Formats: sequence, structure tokens, C-alpha cells
Amino acid sequence: MALNDIATRVYNHNFRLDPIVRSLLDTDFYKLLMLQMIWRDSRDVQATFSLINRSRTVRLADIIDEDELRAQLDHARTLRFTRRELIWLAGNSFYGRQQMFAPDFLAWLADFQLPEYDLRRTGDDGQYELHFAGAWTDTTMWEIPALSIINELKSRAALRQHGRFALDVIYARAKARLWDKVERLRQLPDLVLADFGTRRRHGYLWQNWCVEALKEGLGSRFIGTSNVLIAMNNDLEAIGTNAHELPMVTAALAASDAELAQAPYRVLEAWQRHYNGNLLVALPDAYGTTAFLRQAPAWLAEWTGFRPDSAPPIEGGEQIIRWWQEQGVDPREKLLIFSDGMDIDTIETTWRHFHGRVRMSFGWGTNLTNDFRGCDPDGGDALDPISLVCKVTSANGRPAVKLSDNPAKATGDPDEIARYLRVFGDADRVESAVAV
Amino acid sequence: MALNDIATRVYNHNFRLDPIVRSLLDTDFYKLLMLQMIWRDSRDVQATFSLINRSRTVRLADIIDEDELRAQLDHARTLRFTRRELIWLAGNSFYGRQQMFAPDFLAWLADFQLPEYDLRRTGDDGQYELHFAGAWTDTTMWEIPALSIINELKSRAALRQHGRFALDVIYARAKARLWDKVERLRQLPDLVLADFGTRRRHGYLWQNWCVEALKEGLGSRFIGTSNVLIAMNNDLEAIGTNAHELPMVTAALAASDAELAQAPYRVLEAWQRHYNGNLLVALPDAYGTTAFLRQAPAWLAEWTGFRPDSAPPIEGGEQIIRWWQEQGVDPREKLLIFSDGMDIDTIETTWRHFHGRVRMSFGWGTNLTNDFRGCDPDGGDALDPISLVCKVTSANGRPAVKLSDNPAKATGDPDEIARYLRVFGDADRVESAVAV
Repeated sequence: MALNDIATRVYNHNFRLDPIVRSLLDTDFYKLLMLQMIWRDSRDVQATFSLINRSRTVRLADIIDEDELRAQLDHARTLRFTRRELIWLAGNSFYGRQQMFAPDFLAWLADFQLPEYDLRRTGDDGQYELHFAGAWTDTTMWEIPALSIINELKSRAALRQHGRFALDVIYARAKARLWDKVERLRQLPDLVLADFGTRRRHGYLWQNWCVEALKEGLGSRFIGTSNVLIAMNNDLEAIGTNAHELPMVTAALAASDAELAQAPYRVLEAWQRHYNGNLLVALPDAYGTTAFLRQAPAWLAEWTGFRPDSAPPIEGGEQIIRWWQEQGVDPREKLLIFSDGMDIDTIETTWRHFHGRVRMSFGWGTNLTNDFRGCDPDGGDALDPISLVCKVTSANGRPAVKLSDNPAKATGDPDEIARYLRVFGDADRVESAVAV
Repeated sequence: MALNDIATRVYNHNFRLDPIVRSLLDTDFYKLLMLQMIWRDSRDVQATFSLINRSRTVRLADIIDEDELRAQLDHARTLRFTRRELIWLAGNSFYGRQQMFAPDFLAWLADFQLPEYDLRRTGDDGQYELHFAGAWTDTTMWEIPALSIINELKSRAALRQHGRFALDVIYARAKARLWDKVERLRQLPDLVLADFGTRRRHGYLWQNWCVEALKEGLGSRFIGTSNVLIAMNNDLEAIGTNAHELPMVTAALAASDAELAQAPYRVLEAWQRHYNGNLLVALPDAYGTTAFLRQAPAWLAEWTGFRPDSAPPIEGGEQIIRWWQEQGVDPREKLLIFSDGMDIDTIETTWRHFHGRVRMSFGWGTNLTNDFRGCDPDGGDALDPISLVCKVTSANGRPAVKLSDNPAKATGDPDEIARYLRVFGDADRVESAVAV
């Protein structure tokens, strides 16, 4: 006898909103690490973050209802860090270090609220304009929830077309596909991997399933997740260090071209000082890896490693290994974290290519948490992931720029991009399509 | 907030038995059609049915606990047809005919109970001996529940090795696989198909899912299911006509070789008389299709069609089409029902081969409701289907024999098989492996 649970049924049919983001910890760990440094050193900086949909043919404003989007963003603004969350941040050790977060920072965090947003639909291109303007300490925290809200609303719109049975098939296919990938990953004996898929996930519950799958399938070789909430709930390590917004804001604030040229290194010096020699993984590609390594100071060779994030993984890795060798350090003691659009095939080829020559870890993002390509029983690409980012676009009113190793990933005002190219050069930057 | 439903949880953790067969309608429709004729014409015949595991290497007695098996068989013996079930049988029309079941038969059915069973474990071969001896009207009804109980207990034993996550992966893979098959079937424009998978299903709930998938995917081209309970619950047509036990018992009771040679046709005459010219689909292969057609009476060409059940589908179908042509009838007005171990590939090739030349329907059995090959995350074949049958082995104390078009599917005492081969010949019988 199957009893109907009437209360559950009534509840399910009456909720006003199914909130996508339900905790301020549902964000990437590096946002908190960066936030602490921003709060300490740059709390007077104003920074604007803006949504950029690189997949222009996907008309998000036609797919996602504006009222629904506002309701989700408004709900995220009601969130505060809970006591339990703050206690966990204060008491947990990260990368073996106690008290990664200082008491005064956590005290400030207790009152944190996401700031206002500016959402508009302008023009006929089917895109939303979404900007977050204000103190960098506040606006930076919108990046991840804004992206995961928009991506999940896009998923929900696609799923709404389907009946109960088709939904069952969609998730069965996605689960079968992910587990096939996990079984292939198990063949790589000492592969080390983390979930980096929060921002472009299909949905929160699905990211949770993906994390469970990796935990079950890879055991201790699955080293954790960038998602702080999921890390906390699953007793996993929260993973992350820093992102492009640090050099981008520092570069935007540079008073001269000479200061601009030094900005990427100044940021890393500050990071090193701030975290007392922990979390020493550098992003080399904000203004091109070749330019970055050519001018890089010798002390950077003592850092744990690099996270090449826009060059093709094998070329980018080889370039960094050559640089280590030039600096007289053994790459086998160094770490490369590959995180740019990785999927099972590129993970396998990259792992095989570098195995034994360097320590490696993989940050598996969109292709982990949002691979529903071909899962829709009616065909079509409505469930395919898109290349959506939320980038810092200005700092104290000055335009922010990212060049990247792949010109397709560059962001910023064209005139400023031209100036940055004069300062950093264009060496070895190669355009390739950005899928996710 | 996810509320725990405490009552459900307590109930789930305390049940004494999770019954596999919960209704006497959880059987194949042809068993009821045959039963009515047996009850009318042969209620004094004693018949023994016996379990035969053709997959000898699968040691069922090591896999399935004897107490669990007894508990399930005992539970099946407690079942009676409910009023609702009898009303449905009485009031429903089958194949467009009202009152397929006579009131006096239904009145008898109201008191029906499965008879006693004889379960033993003998020898070192890891097999159970399971016999059902008694009135044919009673023992015939054990075939389907006995098989579905043993098959589901085997599934449960294999599933017990797995954690919650692996179970999720197993069903996701099986669902994804079945839906891929459904999508291929949708490409065959006027394919007509029924579920014949009760006896060797992975489990009752899974058969239900498979039926839902076919309903969803094929619409009206999915014409129904052999499972009476599932047909009733899903407003589907119950599908079936008759099976080998009819000629087998008639043959066993034959007083002479001459009577034996005529037995297969006598049974069909009785069937035709009994169902007033409805349900006219004949099984040609009990003692070899070639022998059957060579001696077949002309009136059989007026029947709706044949269900070739052990010859390779294309050869078997061609043979029957030639026979129709020899009889001067147009095969395009006749029906072939293919039901022997069909799967997506053989359905496709058979459909393409005969399309336009004959009406066709497919009875999709084990490979529909029990295809978990390769779905187990730990590998292994514990979830693979096996070739388990429950056959009539004697009638009124005389051995029953089936020759079939495939010697690997023959059953019966070797001396008797030799005698039947003398009577019917061995023409065109070709051995091939029996997977399911």
C-alpha cells in the first residue's frame, strides 16, 4: 500500500519560489579567499561586475522570464551567513592550515549581504544586461550566485517542456554518461581531481549528484569541490586559490603603463604575503602566459604551481615546465592545475602527456556538472551548456581588461585591450572556439 | 526543508517480506485463455510443471536463499483473485470481443489458489529442483509466478551487493539503454510491438517502467502487454493466445504414434472451436516447424497467423510465408508474431526484411524487461538474464516432450525425444545457443 503523503504534496504544489541559491556558502571557495584579501587591502575600491554571454546565439532574455530572474536574485539578497556556516569557516582547516579566515573578517562577514543589482533588457539581441556596481568587497560575491541562478533558470526553462517520463530519461542518460566518464577516470592510476562546476552547473541538486559520483567512484583521488556549501555538507575539502579579478582590478588601477606591466606580479606578492606562503598557485594567463613568464620574478618558481586557464592544456603546460627548468627547479616537484573547459578526453590526454613529469590536478567544471548534450529525448540543444561569465568590468571607474591566451576569452573595452596588447604583447595567443 | 516521513521510514525498515507476486493477475494473459480451455475440456488431466535452468553455470541454489524462495512461493499461494480483478476480466473486451471469459469459469476462478509446490536442493550442481504436481488446471498457473519470483530473487541477490549510489547508476544505465532502444524503434514507421517480458523480468517495478517507456515512446504502436495486471493498471490491452503446453500435453496423452502425429493439429481445432474463431494465432514449432507445416491441414491457412518461437526469425518467417503461398493465400493479409529472444537488432532486421510482405508484430520479452548487461558498476554478470523455463514435464504420468526448431530448447526424457523425432522427423532443426 502506497500512502500518499498529503502534506508533502500540498507543500510541493504551493511553494511561491524554488530558490536556486539558498546559502551564501553556495559559491566558489576562492571567492572567500580573495574576499578576505580585498577586504583587508582594498575595501575602498569600487568594482563593477557584469554578465557576459559569449554564446550570443542563445537568447537568454527570450528563454528566461525576467520576473523569475528578479525573484531569484532578490531571494539571494535575503541570505546571510548562518552561525553554523561561520563556525565551520572559523573552525575548519583548509589545506592543512588552521584559521585561514581571521576573526575580524568573519565578524564582518556575519553582516554581509549581496548588494543591489541592475538588470535591464536593452536592444534586440535577446540578451540581458546585468551589472553589479558598488564596493568590490560586495560586488565580487555576486559572480557565482548570479551565474548559477541564470544557468539553472535556463535548465528549468528547457525542462519545463518535458513530461515526467522524459525527465526521468534525461537524468538517467546524464547519470549513465557521467558514470561512464568516472569509470574511465578510474583507469588513470594516480589522477587527482576536484569539482569546479558551480557557476555553470545544470542545477544545484545535479551538482550534488556529480560530487557524490566522484566521491563514490574516485575515493580519495577526488580531492574536493570548489563549492563551499557542498564541501561542508559532504565533509569534503573546499578547493580554490584565486582568480583573474585580482590582476584585472590591480591592472585597471595602475597609474601608468609601467605599473600596468608589473600589476600581475604585484598581486601575487600581496597574495603570498596575505596567506603566509600558503595557497601558492598562480594564474599565468590574464594577459598572456608568454608575456607573464618572460617578465616573471624568480621567486615565483618557489610557488607550488600554476593554473593555466586559457591556453591549450598541453602547450600551456609545456611552456610552464620549460620556464621552471630555466629557473632551475624540478617540474616533478611542481603542480599544474588544469581547469579550462576540461572533459574526459582532454583530462585523459593531458594526464597521459604529463604523467611522471609534473604533479597534476584537474579542476573539472562545466563538462562535469552540465553535460546534458544529447540527453533530451526530443533532441535539440536547449540543455547544452553555454559560455556565460560574470567579469569585473571596471574598478574605480577605470575599465578592466582580460587578454587571456585565447583572444576569444578576452574581455574589456576595445581601446583598453589595444593598450594592454601594447604593454604585454600578443605572443603565442591563439584564438580557439569557447564552448563552455 | 525536507521533512522526514517517519511513518514511511519505520514501515520500510520493518516489513517481514517484500512480496514479488502480489496478484494472481500478475501472469501472462495466455495462461488464463489456456486455463479456460483446460478447465472446460481437460479438468481431469494431471500435469506436472518443472523448473529447468538452461543456464547451468548459474548456480541458482547458491545465489537464492531457500527460505526466501519458500517465503515468496508461500506468499503467492495466499493470493486469490480479487473482486475488482474478476469484474475486470468479466467486463473487459479482449481483441474486440466481449465476454472472453465465461461466467462459470470466472465463478470457478474466484476460489482459485496456487497448489502446493515441491522444492528440493539435490546434488552438487547448485540447482533447485522445483516441481508443481496436480491438476493441470492448478499447476499450469504456477509457471509465470514461479519464474518471476526466481528471477527477481536473483536480481535482488545481485543488487544486495551494492550501495545506494551504485543502485542509482545501475537503474540510470538501464533506463538510458532502454530509451535508446525505444528511439531506434520509433524509426520503424509502422512497427507494432507488445511486452512479453513478465516471466524473466528483472523485477515487477522495472517491468512497469519498461511498459511506461514503450507507452510513452511508441504510443499506439505499443499494442499492449502480456501481463494482465499491468494491462489492467495501465489501461492497456492484455496480449496473448496460447503456448506449447497445449500440444505438449495433448501429445503426451496420445495413445499411439499416429495420434501423436496428429496432436498438434487436434489442439488447434479445439482452440478454434473454443474461442469461436478468435485468437487464431498458432505456434508452429513445438515439434519442428518443417514437420508441422508439411502435415498442416488447409484450414490452418485461414487462421490469422503464426508465432514462430524457436527458428531464426527470418528463416522461420520465410518458411511460413512459402507455406501460405502454397496454400494460395496472400501473406500480406496474414500475421507473424516474432517472440523468441528478440532484441533491438533482431527486431530491426526482421522488420526490415519482412516489411510490406506480411503483417508483423513483435513480442519483446527478456531483452526488454531484463537487459542489465554491463550496467553493474562493479562489472560481472550477476544481473544478466538467464534462460530459465518452467515446462510441463508429464501429463497423467506420461512424459511430456518439446522438440522445438532449436535442439537446445528441446525438453523431455531422452527416450521420448527419440520417439518424437521418429514421428515428426528432424528436418531443418538447427542448434543455436539460447541466451534468454
